[in-house]
Amino acid sequence: MRFIDACLGRPVDTTPVWVMRQAGRYLPEYRALRETADFLAMCHRPELAAEATLQPMRRYDLDAAIIFSDILIPVEAMGMTVEFVPEPRLPKPVRTREDVAALREPDPHSATGFVMDALSRVRAALPADKALIGFAGAPFTLATYMIEGGGSREFLNAKSMMYNDPGLFRDLLARIADATVPYLAAQVDAGANAVQVFDSWGGALSPDDWRAFALPAARSVVSRVRRPGVPVIYFLNGIGGVAEDLASVGADVVGVDFRTSLGDAIRRIGPAQPVQGNLDPAALLGPAGLVRERAAEVVAAGRAAAGHVFNLGHGIHRQTPPENVTALVDAVHAAGRRL
Amino acid sequence: MRFIDACLGRPVDTTPVWVMRQAGRYLPEYRALRETADFLAMCHRPELAAEATLQPMRRYDLDAAIIFSDILIPVEAMGMTVEFVPEPRLPKPVRTREDVAALREPDPHSATGFVMDALSRVRAALPADKALIGFAGAPFTLATYMIEGGGSREFLNAKSMMYNDPGLFRDLLARIADATVPYLAAQVDAGANAVQVFDSWGGALSPDDWRAFALPAARSVVSRVRRPGVPVIYFLNGIGGVAEDLASVGADVVGVDFRTSLGDAIRRIGPAQPVQGNLDPAALLGPAGLVRERAAEVVAAGRAAAGHVFNLGHGIHRQTPPENVTALVDAVHAAGRRL
Repeated sequence: MRFIDACLGRPVDTTPVWVMRQAGRYLPEYRALRETADFLAMCHRPELAAEATLQPMRRYDLDAAIIFSDILIPVEAMGMTVEFVPEPRLPKPVRTREDVAALREPDPHSATGFVMDALSRVRAALPADKALIGFAGAPFTLATYMIEGGGSREFLNAKSMMYNDPGLFRDLLARIADATVPYLAAQVDAGANAVQVFDSWGGALSPDDWRAFALPAARSVVSRVRRPGVPVIYFLNGIGGVAEDLASVGADVVGVDFRTSLGDAIRRIGPAQPVQGNLDPAALLGPAGLVRERAAEVVAAGRAAAGHVFNLGHGIHRQTPPENVTALVDAVHAAGRRL
Repeated sequence: MRFIDACLGRPVDTTPVWVMRQAGRYLPEYRALRETADFLAMCHRPELAAEATLQPMRRYDLDAAIIFSDILIPVEAMGMTVEFVPEPRLPKPVRTREDVAALREPDPHSATGFVMDALSRVRAALPADKALIGFAGAPFTLATYMIEGGGSREFLNAKSMMYNDPGLFRDLLARIADATVPYLAAQVDAGANAVQVFDSWGGALSPDDWRAFALPAARSVVSRVRRPGVPVIYFLNGIGGVAEDLASVGADVVGVDFRTSLGDAIRRIGPAQPVQGNLDPAALLGPAGLVRERAAEVVAAGRAAAGHVFNLGHGIHRQTPPENVTALVDAVHAAGRRL
């Protein structure tokens, strides 16, 4: 598979491409599916999750599918109530030692078998040359949702625990990591060809705090999940302050957000590290000519790394015209072949 | 003045310190004042703005006061309706060529004389060794509010204009810059000893877009405002992807957010550039011992630059215990003397 080869730094005929949140609201067929079930029900019902996963694969020549799910699914399995209203809301956040102690270490098959079922269905339906990506949230990112009780701009409850009771905060990170490792391993067993660990909020930390808390927790997950031939991607949203430390996570691929240019990122991370990224998804709101031009620039920059998987530097926006994704995928493959 | 000397790279007896949003809701005396008037009325009434500005100067040994105001005050003067509910809201956003053409180029004295009055009052009340800082939003940051009609997470309307009609977007930036230059000059005439240009949202751009749009607009303001002995500070919230380009803004001082470590920032910006920053304001929610320790680390890192003004790497949070600011200011001055 072209995607797996690029992740592992092997030669490829062209640059592989997938898009974060490619199974999503910018697609009319996704919106139609969502009219039949709410978001959490879509995650819980394998036939719906599989269908959402496959929709963009039918429309576009993407090199990988990513399973339709949410990073909070294993948090639910750990015993927390998770709602989407539509933003995620956890009405009983984790704030005390007792709250942390009450978290369950779920068996991934019994607690989240529906994810594994969806993966098996998608893997069976996908052509052999298309990869299937499983995923989980990184421990720090999941901890912010669990402590804040939802999304946040400032993460003050999470940081307050981190500064006032670093031992408790580390315990929470360790518990999340311990739940995440078998969850990702089960996804691979069910058919995932690669897994991505999303550290969506790790970039909200100062570099010292990221190194002290988020990095070791992410490394713990990555090192325990890696196995030969199944790449692990670590995506940190906001690498600008810590690029030099990213190789030390030990992932096969480092995902780069759009606020650092890919060329700089490769220089700072080190060219031996395969990378993924990083077009600003807002560029897809521009004319198709601009999409093609920017895509080709990112492909060219990616040549400096040992491997490059093209992606956006953040999830695709629901306002994106679907035809601009066609332009994007074609431009990436064309530019990758030309180079 | 210690603050001015540090900005200009002159020798100082210790590191000067001020705090972004130091006149704010974490202070009980500020909350009491706010009970007498809403936020915009406080900005519009010089006696209230002056009082809010002076409150933290009475409580703490800060080296500089920053005038109590808002970056949207000159936007109001350009003819737009600005509300605080409490988040900023501009009910008639700028979306078309006609909207841009309708913007006024205000005379700062007649349109925003209340700001100049407040500055004069504060300068008269401040001890001679304390600096007074005026400020304005950077053109890109103000453009996002004007186009989005308020705050935003993704800035999709602003980026959409930028990608689909870059000429119009540049016209808007130029108009904002042209209004900002006399506004800042008037603040200096009224008593400001330095001015800060806040690019609060410039870090939401890809580096290429920041260099193509935000940087030239900020440089245009800075280059036209600079005059001998009156430092201009450029604060970009999110320098991680563009640190190497910051010296080219041409400011006397570059403000550094907390998501890049100050030592790395100085290396990447270049040690000849005086810098300001950059403790994570969330650290002030931790114990006083941690505040002191982190403050001393930032002071030590700042020694590598030609000049260093201590500040937080973002505005102080309203949940901050006021006594932690005492610990912070004392720790900065003590560490600066020791080194």
